[in-house]
This record gives sequence, C-alpha cells and structure tokens, in this order.
Amino acid sequence: MLVPGLMLIIVAAAIVYVCWNYVNIKKMNEGTDDMIELAGIIRSGARTFVKTEFRMIAIVVVIIAIILSVFIEKTAAISFILGSAMSSLVCIMGMRSATYANVRTSNRARETKSIGETVKVALCGGSISGLLVQALGMLGMILVIMIFGVKADSVGGGFWTKIDGINASLMRISTYSLGCSLVAMFNRVAGGNYTKAADISSDILAKIRHDMPEDDSRVPNVIADFIGDNVNDIAGNCSDLLESFVATIAATMMIAVSKFNDPIVIADAAARNVSGDKMKTLLDRLIDFPVLLAGLGLLGCLIGLGLSQFKKKMSDDPSKELDLTTWISAGATLVFGFFAALIMFSGKGSVNALKVYDFKWGFVSPWLCAVMGILAGVAIGVITEYYTSTDYKPTRQLGEIATEGEAFVITKGDAIGSRSVLLPVLLIGLALMGSGAICGTYGIATAALDMLSFVGATVSIDAFGPIADNAGGIAEACHLDPDVRVITDKLDAVGNTTAAIGKGFAIGSAAFATVSLIVAYVENCNFGKFLSNPITIDFTDYLVVAGGIVGGALVEYFSAMLTDNTIEAARIMADVGDKELSKPGVLEGQIKPDYNMCVELAAKQALKKMLVPSVLALIIPIIGGFAFGVKFVGGILVGATIVAIPRAIFMGNSGGAFDNAKKYIESGAIEGHGKGTAAHKAAVTGDTVGDTRKDVVGVALDIFIKTMSTVANTLAVVIRSVRG
Amino acid sequence: MLVPGLMLIIVAAAIVYVCWNYVNIKKMNEGTDDMIELAGIIRSGARTFVKTEFRMIAIVVVIIAIILSVFIEKTAAISFILGSAMSSLVCIMGMRSATYANVRTSNRARETKSIGETVKVALCGGSISGLLVQALGMLGMILVIMIFGVKADSVGGGFWTKIDGINASLMRISTYSLGCSLVAMFNRVAGGNYTKAADISSDILAKIRHDMPEDDSRVPNVIADFIGDNVNDIAGNCSDLLESFVATIAATMMIAVSKFNDPIVIADAAARNVSGDKMKTLLDRLIDFPVLLAGLGLLGCLIGLGLSQFKKKMSDDPSKELDLTTWISAGATLVFGFFAALIMFSGKGSVNALKVYDFKWGFVSPWLCAVMGILAGVAIGVITEYYTSTDYKPTRQLGEIATEGEAFVITKGDAIGSRSVLLPVLLIGLALMGSGAICGTYGIATAALDMLSFVGATVSIDAFGPIADNAGGIAEACHLDPDVRVITDKLDAVGNTTAAIGKGFAIGSAAFATVSLIVAYVENCNFGKFLSNPITIDFTDYLVVAGGIVGGALVEYFSAMLTDNTIEAARIMADVGDKELSKPGVLEGQIKPDYNMCVELAAKQALKKMLVPSVLALIIPIIGGFAFGVKFVGGILVGATIVAIPRAIFMGNSGGAFDNAKKYIESGAIEGHGKGTAAHKAAVTGDTVGDTRKDVVGVALDIFIKTMSTVANTLAVVIRSVRG
Repeated sequence: MLVPGLMLIIVAAAIVYVCWNYVNIKKMNEGTDDMIELAGIIRSGARTFVKTEFRMIAIVVVIIAIILSVFIEKTAAISFILGSAMSSLVCIMGMRSATYANVRTSNRARETKSIGETVKVALCGGSISGLLVQALGMLGMILVIMIFGVKADSVGGGFWTKIDGINASLMRISTYSLGCSLVAMFNRVAGGNYTKAADISSDILAKIRHDMPEDDSRVPNVIADFIGDNVNDIAGNCSDLLESFVATIAATMMIAVSKFNDPIVIADAAARNVSGDKMKTLLDRLIDFPVLLAGLGLLGCLIGLGLSQFKKKMSDDPSKELDLTTWISAGATLVFGFFAALIMFSGKGSVNALKVYDFKWGFVSPWLCAVMGILAGVAIGVITEYYTSTDYKPTRQLGEIATEGEAFVITKGDAIGSRSVLLPVLLIGLALMGSGAICGTYGIATAALDMLSFVGATVSIDAFGPIADNAGGIAEACHLDPDVRVITDKLDAVGNTTAAIGKGFAIGSAAFATVSLIVAYVENCNFGKFLSNPITIDFTDYLVVAGGIVGGALVEYFSAMLTDNTIEAARIMADVGDKELSKPGVLEGQIKPDYNMCVELAAKQALKKMLVPSVLALIIPIIGGFAFGVKFVGGILVGATIVAIPRAIFMGNSGGAFDNAKKYIESGAIEGHGKGTAAHKAAVTGDTVGDTRKDVVGVALDIFIKTMSTVANTLAVVIRSVRG
Repeated sequence: MLVPGLMLIIVAAAIVYVCWNYVNIKKMNEGTDDMIELAGIIRSGARTFVKTEFRMIAIVVVIIAIILSVFIEKTAAISFILGSAMSSLVCIMGMRSATYANVRTSNRARETKSIGETVKVALCGGSISGLLVQALGMLGMILVIMIFGVKADSVGGGFWTKIDGINASLMRISTYSLGCSLVAMFNRVAGGNYTKAADISSDILAKIRHDMPEDDSRVPNVIADFIGDNVNDIAGNCSDLLESFVATIAATMMIAVSKFNDPIVIADAAARNVSGDKMKTLLDRLIDFPVLLAGLGLLGCLIGLGLSQFKKKMSDDPSKELDLTTWISAGATLVFGFFAALIMFSGKGSVNALKVYDFKWGFVSPWLCAVMGILAGVAIGVITEYYTSTDYKPTRQLGEIATEGEAFVITKGDAIGSRSVLLPVLLIGLALMGSGAICGTYGIATAALDMLSFVGATVSIDAFGPIADNAGGIAEACHLDPDVRVITDKLDAVGNTTAAIGKGFAIGSAAFATVSLIVAYVENCNFGKFLSNPITIDFTDYLVVAGGIVGGALVEYFSAMLTDNTIEAARIMADVGDKELSKPGVLEGQIKPDYNMCVELAAKQALKKMLVPSVLALIIPIIGGFAFGVKFVGGILVGATIVAIPRAIFMGNSGGAFDNAKKYIESGAIEGHGKGTAAHKAAVTGDTVGDTRKDVVGVALDIFIKTMSTVANTLAVVIRSVRG
C-alpha cells in the first residue's frame, strides 16, 4: 500500500492545482455584453445537455451495478459506480472549465492583442480537463486498491449467485474500468451526433443554401455547433482517454495476477528455483508498478504544464510553447519511468524471477517497452500530420483534384485515407513485436500504459483546440475586431496540428490497450477451475474464425449506425434552421433567431440516438458468449480490433485531409479556383463527408472495441461457467 | 484413378459442347456494316489488350516457375505453368466468344425483336465462358493428379536445394492453384483499371463536360469502355472464379493429406481401432471426393444450360429463364452431391474412420456442409439484391437523399455499404460454424467447394451481363431502332439482378476458401519434421497479433493503390478524349474520333499500373515470412481476410446502391428531380465514386487474400525451414 499511498499525494497535488486554475479562470474578465450573453447560452446549453445525458446514463449505470453485484461480485457495484462517477466528473468539470475559458480566451485576445497571453488562458482552461483525466482516473483506481486490496486468490461471488472461479480483486478492477468505458461510450456516440449534426447543418445553411460566412450568428445552428465542440471534443475526448488510461492500468494488473496463477508460469518458477515468496513479492510489485508509472507520469505533466503556465512571458509562437509542454511532460515521464522500473524490479537475484514473467533484460525490460510505445506514438502523430496537413503532398493533391469535381475529391480522399493506414499500423506492429519479445504480455500492457502515462499533458493540449475554436467562434459571432479573429485562428490552427500527435497516441494506445485486454481476456477465461483446460484464440478453430469475421462486420455496422444517425439529425436540423432563417428580419440581421430551440433539438436528437449503438457494444459479448461460448467472443474481439484500427485511422485521416484540402483552396493556393468556385464547392462536399467520418465514426471506433473487450473481460468466467 | 478418369469424360463432354456453341455463335449474322465495323474494333481492341497482357504475365510465370523447380520442387514448374495456362486459355476463349456474341445478340434483337431469341444468343455466348471455367480448371487438376498421383508421403525437392518436409504431391496441387491465382490477380487489377478508367472518363465527358447521352459514339472513350466490359467482366471474372474453384479443390485435398499425417489424428485412429489400411483407403476417397463433386457439378451445369438452350421457345421473361438455369444446375449438383457422398463414404464400418476426420454424422456430413454453403450463398445474393436494387428501401432512400446534395449521397451510400455487411457475414459465420461442427476443417473446405461446384452455370449467367451490356452499347452507337435498345436494356437489367446472386456466391465462397486455405496453411507449416513442434495462429501470441493488424492494413493499402491508379488513368483519358471531341466536326457527328488512340491509351495505362499491386500479393507472405516467421504470416492471412471480407461487401454494395440510385432518379421516380437536375448530378457523383469501388477494388479484394494465402501455402515449409 506504500506505492498507492504515495501516488495519492501526487493526485491530491494535481487536484489542488486544478482547483487553483479553475478559480483563476473564473476570476478573469468575460468581455463585452454580447460576449457574456453568447458565452452564457453556450454554457447553459452545454450544461443542459450534460445534465440530461448523465441522467440517462445514471439509469443504465444503476441497472448494471445491481446486476453485477447480485450475480457476479458483491463489491463490483461500488467499483463500477466509482468508475462511471469519475468519468462523469471529469466530463462535467472539463466542460465547465472549457465554457468559462472560451469566452475569456476571446476576451484576452481582445484586450491584449497578444498571442502569448491568449495561449496562456486557453492552456490554463485545457489543463483543467487534462489533469483531471489523469488525476481522477487514478484516484478511483487507488481507492479501489486501497480499500479492497488486490489478491491473486480473493474469491468473489454475488449476492444471489456464486460462480466458481471469480476473483473479486480482478472483478473490481475490471468493473471500475467498465464504468469508465460505459460513460465514454455514451459520450462519444451522443457527442459526435450532437456536434456534427449541428456543424453539418450549419455548413449546409451557410455554405450551400444561403452563401454566408462560416460561424455567422444569423444561422441558429451555429450556436449548437459551438456547444457541440465542447460536448464532443472536451467531454467525449476526456472520457475516451480516461477510459484508455484506466483500461491499460487494469489490463496490466489483470495480466500480472492471471500469470501468477498460470500452471505454466508456476512450473517455470519452480524450474528456475524461484521460491513462492519471491513470486509473491514480485506479484505485489507487478501490481504496484502501473500505479507508480501513472502517478509519476502525472507528476511529469504537472511539471510540464506548470512550467509553461508560470512562465513570465510566453512567446508568440504557440506551436513551440505547446510542443515544449508536451516534450517536458513526456521526457520527465520517461526519466521517472526508468527509475520506477529500477526501484521496483532491480532487487538482488530478481533477474530469474523476472524471467518467469518473460522479462528478457531484467528491470530495464518494461522501460524499453515504454520507449518503444512512446516512439511509436510520436511517429504515428508525424505520419498523421503528413497525410492531413496542407504542407504536404497528399492534402495538396486532394485540393488540386477538386478542380475535377466532387467524385474525384471523394475517391481521392478515400485513397488517401486507405493509404495512410499502413505506416501507423506497421509501427504499432513493430512496437507490439518488440514489447512482446522483450517483456511478454506484461510488456505489451506496459507499453500501452506508458503511451498514456502523460495523458494529462496530451489531453490538456487537445482541450486547447476546442477552447480556441470556440473563442474564434465567439469573436466572429460577436463581431469583434478582425485582429482578434486572427489571433484565435492562429491558436485554432496550432490546436489542429498538435492534435495530430494527440491522435497518434490515442490510436496507438488504443491498439495496444485492446491487445492487452484480449490477452487478459484469455487469461481470465482460463482462471480458477478452468486452469486445467485452457482455451486459446486459435484461428484454425471454426468458432474463433466465425467470431473473427462477425467481429469485423460489427465494426462496419456500428459505423453505419452512427453515420445514419448523424445525417438524419443534420437533415432535421438544417430544415429547422432554414425555417428560422426564413423568418423576416433574421437574414438581414435585425432579429436574432431562436437559438435555444436549435440547441434543444440537437440535444434531443443526439440523446434519442445515443442508446442503441452504445448498448450494442455492451451486449455483443454477452449474446455472442452465451450463444457460442468464450472462443467465439475471443474471435469477435480480435476481428473487431483488426477491422477497427485501420478503419479509425482511415476515418480520421481522410476526414482531416478533406478538411484541410478545403482550407487549402480557400487560402487561394490553386490559381483560379478560390472560394466560391466549382472546385471549392467540391472541396466543401469532401469536408462535409469527412465531418462524419473523423468526428463521429473515427473517434467512436476505439471506444467501441475497448468497451467490448472490457465487458468480455468482466464476464469471461461467467460465460465459461454457463456456456463452456 | 477411377474417379479422375470418369470425371475426365464429363470434362471432355463439356469441352465438346463449348466448341459446338462457339461454332454456332460464329455462324450467326453480325448485322449492318456499322455493327460489323464497331464489333471489329471492340474485338481487336480486346485481343490486343489480352495479347500484351499475357505476354507480360508469361514473363512473370516463367521466372516463378524456374524459382519453384530450382529451389522447391522439380515438377512444380509444370503444374504452375499448367495452372496459369488453363486460366489464360479460359480468359482468351471467354473474351473471344463474348466479342463474337455481343454484336450477334444486338443483331438478333434487331432481326427478331424477340426477347427470348435474344436471350438465347447472349446465354449461348456466356455459357462458353462459364463451362470453360469449370472444365479447364478441372482438366488441369485432373492432369496433375493422373500424371503424378497424390501421395501422403511423396518427398519433394528442387533441382538445386532440397528442403526437408516438402510433400511433392501437395506442392504440385498448391502450385497449380498458384498459377491460376497469379493470372487472376493480374487480370483483375489490369481489367479493373482498364474498364473503369474508360468508363469514368467517358462519363465525365458525356455527363459532366458535354451533356451528351451515355454510350454516345462521338465520345472516343466509349469504345474503350465497351472493350473494358469484356476485359474485366469476362476475363477478370472468369479467371477469378476459376481460381476460387481450383483453390477450394486444392485446399480440400491438402487438408485431407495433412490430417492423415497429423499425430493427433493418427492417435485418434488407433484409439478408435481404425487400421492403417482403412485410413489409407479413406485418404484416397477424401482426395477423390472434391474431384467427383466438381465433376458432377459440371454435369449439373451441362444439364441446366443444355435444357435452356435446346428449349424450342424461350419465354419473354429472361429473368425467369436465367433463374431456372441456375436452379436446375444447383439442384442437380446438390442431388449428385448426395450420391457422391453416399458412394465415397458410406462403406461398411466407415463411420468410425470418418469420425477421425471429424465427420459427426457419417457419410452425410460433407453433404450437409454443402447444403449450408449453398443456402448461405443464395441468401447472401438475396441480401445483396435488397441493399442494391431500386425495388427496396436502401437504394430508394439513397435516391431521395440526392436532393440534399453530393455530401449526403456519399455519406448515405457509405452507411448503406457498411450496414449491408452484417447479415452476409453472419450467414457466412453460421455456415462456417455449422460446417466445422458437423464435418471439421474438411467440411469447411467442402462447403466452399460445393458453393463453387456449379460455377459453370453462375459464370455463364455472369457473362450474360456484359454481353447484353455490350449489345446495348452497340445498338446505341450504331443508331439502331430504339426497340432494339429496349430489348438489350431489359437483358442488361436482368443481368444486373442475376449478378447479385453470383456475387453472393463469389463472396461467400471466397470467405470459405480463404478459411480453408488458412487451415491448410497451418497444417502445411506443421508438416514433416515440424509435426512434433506444431504452430498455431493464436492471437495472444504477439507475432500473430502484429501480423493480424498489419494484414488488415495491407488490404487498405492495396485498395488505395488500385483507387489511385484508376482515377489517375481516368483523368488522363478524360483529357485525351476531350481533345478529340474538340476537333472540329467530332462533336457534330460528322467526323469519327480516333478510337484506336483511346483504346491503346487505356491498355497502356492499365498494363503500366498492373505490376506493382499484383506483385504485392505475391511478396507480402515471402517478406513477412522470412522477416518474422510463419506465425507472423498466419496473422497476416487472418487479418487480411477479416478486413477484406467486409470491405469487399462494402465496396460492392455501396457501389451497386449508388449505381441504381442514379437509375432510380433517371426513371423519374422522384418528382421534380429527374434527369439533369441537381439531384441527378449528385447521384451521378455517387455513381462515379461507386464505379471504382465496385468494379475495381471490391472485386480485387477476394483475389488479393486468396493469392496471399496460396503463396503462403506453397512456401509454408520453406519459410519454416529457413526462419522457424
């Protein structure tokens, strides 16, 4: 309990720092009356949405919690509710701080006309979300560990049924992660729908039907779009990464415990003359290690963010400042990580014991996995940048081909998206092989965790983006000085670029996390009385193959549902917005349209369409498992992962390239084909197609596979007991 | 040798029947001078293309043949060359007969104005391709078997190196299949590029740039489009299905032989008191069975096609006639299949021996797999029809959403494509599970073979489509009476619908075939000296996982290459066509444009871009294998299959829905949004995007995974010997 206790101190420090930032932000000046009014609408719209959403989520959470503790493990309800509560709290606080920070960022730009000063405000707002993701994710996990402990032989059971083979400790860890998953799933699905229905419908109204500038406040859907940025890019992103972060901690612990009970490992330990006591000590350290790593990463983020914030004068190159923050956080985390491995695993005579856990090169093995994971993450970010930025060939070509019309834009965008998949996946594959070779399955889980152990900093930078975006929107809608918009545009552009690296980490870590979860799943299937009759996910087994192809198809189906829901909602919202615009005086700017009606409509649509896709991820492993057994579910998880990883990259990158190709044309880079030309119209079509891809489907696929895997992990023993 | 010998008689009968049809077709009247001239251009264009293409393929074939016999197995060069020769012969004969039949179909419609009479000509032309696919595919295989025999213990070796563990019999079977694969791969890649570059560029010229009707002969690219139909839909399709057909026969035999050598099977046989002699007899029958099944299927096709052709008077409902042909062939095949199983496996006391091969229900087991396979195939066809025909909701909705502009069409089409994946895959999954449960891995291979054992009939119907399409094009280009075009349009529409069922079988059987090939691959990896140290494709192994995600990404990359190549070629061709059209007199119809230049350009583009993607499929397993070993390759095969199946369905169905949504609008079904409106233009965009998807990428994905799997099978022992 020493390690979790110490880490609790770092968590507490982070929370204090966050509160201090929060108070500081609130104290800042909001600006003109117009700005105050608009910010108020955004804030209250966001709050209303979140309130309604979380009320619905709460019902689902309570039902699942009851089922868990009645049938599976008594205490699982507590950990499950704790997980969902932590995730929800992050979302609520993140949205609150972002909706305070957006208008204040705008105002700071207005008052100071200084880029550096403006960056400070946006980053301060972003850091609240970022640090809370890491701090609260850890807080819940530490509470679960400290209150109940983690034991390899803790026997679990529900109030009603007692299923042989359930380990209470693992069940709590896995249900804590499941709680986080659930909230993230709902958030991503609802958030994507909300923001893109609003965005697409306002694009249709402004660009296609009425020829108005972007973010024009006469279009009522624009305000829903501003709110949507907060709903999806703040709340959705925070809960998504919180879930990844927690899932990798959970997977690392589950693998440590399962391996400890594995007869092959036990036999290997005996053959190497490693005593039972030594193995027990090692187990404790293997369980403590992810907490230590995560805690030290949080410390690294505090240092990185703190340094940038307490800097007297920030330069006018925001890109440099943000990069510096990331690198300091990542660097500190890596250095701390080395010492963490040294402290935990370098004891005298430990090399032999470590070999039982497949550590090839002693204590340094998990750290090497970390290095590989982080390098892969950075490289994926750079590749993303290459395929989606106007500085490089692919997006420029996409812009140029727009002169040939819509069909070419779409087909070329599809090709760019598909082409961009290979390199990131090769890197993930290499890092997986490397980690597996150096440090076994525990190493793969550790690599995933390491990519996420400075998640506080990456989410802070991620959150910077939508805050700057909103600030720009407010500047436009409130008709502030064009200088202000220039500053916020610059921030927005930088946010887009840094987001590429964040995206690299999100996709890379999701791939690693899911692989760890699949490994943990197999080990969970072979727990307790099933130790003597282990299953494998062998693809010459017809059950596994069938599961595999079905899993892949489910990813496509899930994508289709989200896409259909979004365009349906967008159509409805465009028509309603059009009605508002047709009211006399609105188009002339004399009368304000009914913003609230549009905001409520967006929320209603999003919430109505949230339930089915979200619940799908929960019930697939259950139905599949009870119908065809654990091997079939194993196949589903593998199949879904193999399809979802390239699809997520495809969606993100083709969407990003479409978006920026449009901007490339708007910048006037292609002579004779600027704004308003046929080529521009074709590029706008591409951008609209890309909107759904990158902000609805792409971001939801990760969480879809992770949620399925977490459910499967929770229910592995249950399904095997019932169905074999 | 009794069974192959008997089947040789059926093959000979089929070839005689084909020759008779060929002579008959040639004797028919070609029509007006214009028609004769145009048909001549198409025929010579197609011939030139095939000649140049096969010259390039021949070089690759010879190189590979030399490598095979020097390093792996002496006789493999013969079987490999035989495979590629059979496949090439089918393509050449198929294209020849189709380019004779197209103009004669047109002329028959002109002369008789009878739908029934016209159908007869087109079907007669199609049956030449269809029957040759099955007859020549079998002929080569039977020759390989009869000349060299198939023995479980035949030791192989190359002229230079002798790698321990190579079975010469299996190597010949696998390289025969590889020869077919190679030709199919090149054909699909080049054919798709040829036909769609021509099609898209003529669409751009006719519909977007110059507002002319489809198939207008003033557009020079139109002729290349006519030729392209033959290149892709006849030669490409024939070689593709020939490959599937041969690969499933090969996989069934390989599984039979490998299992015979498997220590677990041997031990099981001993435990069941099945003598070695009995096992040997069974092995011979397991090897003969696929040949018997395929031969009896060919007989079924002869009956089905013969009945329709010798019918005195064909009704004016071509859809009914074609369906009847398919059902008679399928029904006869199923009935014959039952007797085949009865004859081969119902001997006294055979039940125990069959159990060793996982036959749960005695001799009837493989037949039940056949029933499941065929039912799945039909059901997939019906589902395809549902998602892509204007008679049902999805395509109608897609047509209606075109009123909202291009972005909505594309997004909705994407959603339809993704949504259409689930049901077919569930059916494939269920059929796989059923076959596996009833009849083990041999059953899965048998189910695949059964879906393809009346391939003669399905390809005949498939080939009917492009012949009718070409006939319509000729009618339009030669300004025949509009009545003629009405008849050919009707035939074309029917061809599209029946093609749906053919597509269902193609996708379903490809999925089954690849699964069988993966099973065979693992067994090939564990052959000879590796029997004692078998590998599995277990997805908790980091090498397998890494291979899996890389395999998935490779499918995306392959798709991107084909897409990029097509739009690049289309752009070039559109510009060249535009230049021709701008020549004075061409647009007015007074001067004919330079067709040959356009035809040559299409061929040049297609051939230039053929090599890299085709060779990719060949070298991936080699590079992957020598770099990271057989497990990694196993992962690649699984990953590629799991991604390619849903992607192929997505591409085919979204493309089909786009195509028909456009036709739906053109039919005037949506009031106020007919031809020439903004909605129609949006639908045309969708159609153009869909062209590349369905006719270039979608059809090539199957062959991509099958080629990789066949290469892996051929090299399994080699890689394991070198790399472990």
